[in-house]
Amino acid sequence: MSGRDGVFIAFEGGDGAGKSTQVRLLAEVLRARGREVLLTRQPGGTELGAAIRDLVLHGDHVSPRAEALLFAADKAHHVDLVIRPALAAGQVVLTDRYTDSSVAYQGAGRDLGADEVHDLQMWAVDELVPDLTVVVDVPPEEGRRRRGEVHDRLEAEADAFHASIREHFLAMARGNPQRYVVVDGTRPAEDMHAEVLARVEALGVLDPVTGGAP
Amino acid sequence: MSGRDGVFIAFEGGDGAGKSTQVRLLAEVLRARGREVLLTRQPGGTELGAAIRDLVLHGDHVSPRAEALLFAADKAHHVDLVIRPALAAGQVVLTDRYTDSSVAYQGAGRDLGADEVHDLQMWAVDELVPDLTVVVDVPPEEGRRRRGEVHDRLEAEADAFHASIREHFLAMARGNPQRYVVVDGTRPAEDMHAEVLARVEALGVLDPVTGGAP
Repeated sequence: MSGRDGVFIAFEGGDGAGKSTQVRLLAEVLRARGREVLLTRQPGGTELGAAIRDLVLHGDHVSPRAEALLFAADKAHHVDLVIRPALAAGQVVLTDRYTDSSVAYQGAGRDLGADEVHDLQMWAVDELVPDLTVVVDVPPEEGRRRRGEVHDRLEAEADAFHASIREHFLAMARGNPQRYVVVDGTRPAEDMHAEVLARVEALGVLDPVTGGAP
Repeated sequence: MSGRDGVFIAFEGGDGAGKSTQVRLLAEVLRARGREVLLTRQPGGTELGAAIRDLVLHGDHVSPRAEALLFAADKAHHVDLVIRPALAAGQVVLTDRYTDSSVAYQGAGRDLGADEVHDLQMWAVDELVPDLTVVVDVPPEEGRRRRGEVHDRLEAEADAFHASIREHFLAMARGNPQRYVVVDGTRPAEDMHAEVLARVEALGVLDPVTGGAP
């Protein structure tokens, strides 16, 4: 037992940016180096969270504030039941999306202000902030290509929405460079992974576990 | 058409206090005087709200913050889809419980602070505050008798919980006497009703509708 607390790393970015590949590659390296790794995702990383996601996505119209509160409830439950216990057990927790996605999607694209969604999210997770957030960045047109969206009359609107989402992620990273790394999602996955790994190594969480045996 | 905006009246108080009788008696009088009245309740006054209530009450353990956020989501949806449209249409909206119950139950009895639950609720309803809140007040031992609870070893704990709930309602009423009326729930229902009606009349919402015809 290292006696060291866990490490919390979030991956953020638009749809089709390649986040899940980066999560997987990092998990493989961490496990190979002897760390226990918990992979999770939001929304929907718990049974309650999956039920909440179904309510939002498959029900009738949900008011914007109700939607923001439901996603915050999913986050609160997920942090309390999954993430904090894993961190307390010394694990590395990798999450595919966290609070920044909620702020970007609900605050940037919809009727609510990003600041108020941020405050709501911070209350939901009781101020649990990742040790490192990896933003996988792709330009909107590249993201659209990857999502397989066709050219239609809604394209300009969709591009503006995704550009707004992207700008939120980049602004959050600019505001806190020691806690964020932005990787260029148009580069090969292995190149991105090397850059992510370098930042994770800089956290000191891959140091060999020493001592313990008498 | 009076051209007047609607009126929003909330009824709060512990379980078994007699709120629903007071809601019904007031609705009868308002309708007899020609007002359109919408009766509603929280939580669960919408289809989404009922699904949320089922999640909280019938699921596994829900973390305290997640529970507060879920009830806030119910409130947000209810206000946006039911209460605001009715008020905009000039109706009188009577609700059996509103934000004060959430603050009292989640903030007083549980792990969260009343101030933060209050802020959360106010964000959920986008600051929609009732024109009048009626607190139907009963001492904890009388409430216990009405709820049919038996004397057991948990009685003292339950009394403390209900006393805390009650104190929250009374404190909110003391802090804003022009927007609250506290009625003694141990008195006959008709006596309470007369007191409530006097305060509603003082709002000016029962004035005869004049004019309109050419």
